[in-house]
Amino acid sequence: MENKKIINIIGRGNVATHLANAFEGKAEINMVNPHSLAELNTDADLTIISVTDTAIAKVLDKLPKINGIVAHTSGSTSIDVFKSFRQDRFGVFYPLQTFSKSKKMKYEDIPFYIEASDKITADTLFNYALLISDNVRFADSSQREKLHIAAVLSCNFVNHLWALSEKYLKEAGLDFHDLTPLIRETFDKANIISPTAAQTGPAVREDMKTIQNHIDKLENYACIREIYKLLSDSIINYNRTIKTGNS
Amino acid sequence: MENKKIINIIGRGNVATHLANAFEGKAEINMVNPHSLAELNTDADLTIISVTDTAIAKVLDKLPKINGIVAHTSGSTSIDVFKSFRQDRFGVFYPLQTFSKSKKMKYEDIPFYIEASDKITADTLFNYALLISDNVRFADSSQREKLHIAAVLSCNFVNHLWALSEKYLKEAGLDFHDLTPLIRETFDKANIISPTAAQTGPAVREDMKTIQNHIDKLENYACIREIYKLLSDSIINYNRTIKTGNS
Repeated sequence: MENKKIINIIGRGNVATHLANAFEGKAEINMVNPHSLAELNTDADLTIISVTDTAIAKVLDKLPKINGIVAHTSGSTSIDVFKSFRQDRFGVFYPLQTFSKSKKMKYEDIPFYIEASDKITADTLFNYALLISDNVRFADSSQREKLHIAAVLSCNFVNHLWALSEKYLKEAGLDFHDLTPLIRETFDKANIISPTAAQTGPAVREDMKTIQNHIDKLENYACIREIYKLLSDSIINYNRTIKTGNS
Repeated sequence: MENKKIINIIGRGNVATHLANAFEGKAEINMVNPHSLAELNTDADLTIISVTDTAIAKVLDKLPKINGIVAHTSGSTSIDVFKSFRQDRFGVFYPLQTFSKSKKMKYEDIPFYIEASDKITADTLFNYALLISDNVRFADSSQREKLHIAAVLSCNFVNHLWALSEKYLKEAGLDFHDLTPLIRETFDKANIISPTAAQTGPAVREDMKTIQNHIDKLENYACIREIYKLLSDSIINYNRTIKTGNS
């Protein structure tokens, strides 16, 4: 009866909740999501620490010796965090996705990046990730950090530009949601033909008259104005580099 | 037989091509997309000037007197551009969307913004737009300019952040397309719960250790580094304002 693999999931946040949810339906997994470290199963095959980055070392410090693998789920925490603690087999089990507790998602599309203390542990973690996702790969801590930086640029900063637009339009009696078809089309194009090739707008045309007019009109929005200037300059420079590279 | 309305579309670019395409299938419209101004139908009910912003005044200067309405499609050109020319009824017929000639799109979702010389012309343009889209509204030149600025922030700048990520990941042996599920989820969340409420990442958590580490790691990417600093600061400040506003 007990061929099932036991997985502890430590954490009650967004990532922990979704990982627990993803493993819960699997016939081969016996999933434990304890309320305290005292309730952990120390014979677990895998213990996933899914807490805030700064809490990982604190959890490791209090963790009893686990017979199986101990892994964290952080994009920005090196595998070296395990080195001063007493676990033998450890690794990283990083899902490149943003999670909200209340929102369902298709787990099979989420890229998982695996790194581990040794080859066997890496392969084992890889196979656990394959239970959830069709898109699993190995990445070392340096690559994972680069993914995290790119995710900050491509998602956190992107969302902030939308938030600034929302506020700006609202103050003009306009609705941010009118931009939805345009944003969706921008995203589709970037996906199909690559964002570098898909760039449109005044900056890539070097339409300095429109750029200067927009900067003038943003006089009461100092923060948006600085962003407007820096990103327009960046588009102009980037585009010139691309053109030079291609010629 | 001739109850059909005649529409001239001046221009051969992306917007002109899609507008011509959108009107072409309508039983009530006789669409003319001439190769030169000499081929225009001067008895047209509507003449749409869909050329680059800087070319609008040049086209108006050469345009014969048209009996019907003359409208441009530019988000960033004021209705005042018509004032020194000899047309009586004029307006703006602005589709808030980015167009590529080769890519099909659902025209009915595209928001159209209408402005005109007089109320009757405005209503007429509104009804022409309703032939294409379910989402038509009136907006004056100042509002349209604000929409254009917001579109630059929400689409052009967003796409540029994706382009920078693409280059950065490629140089690390990683694939920008791995970010697609994360970007899609970010977009869905922003749409459902508003981008202001949906913000995630190190800056909104004021996780200065991660921010500083990312800035350090971007030492060979001066341009991305400046953008990282400015946008992180902006998120921190914006979030503090929101919190203060809510308390």
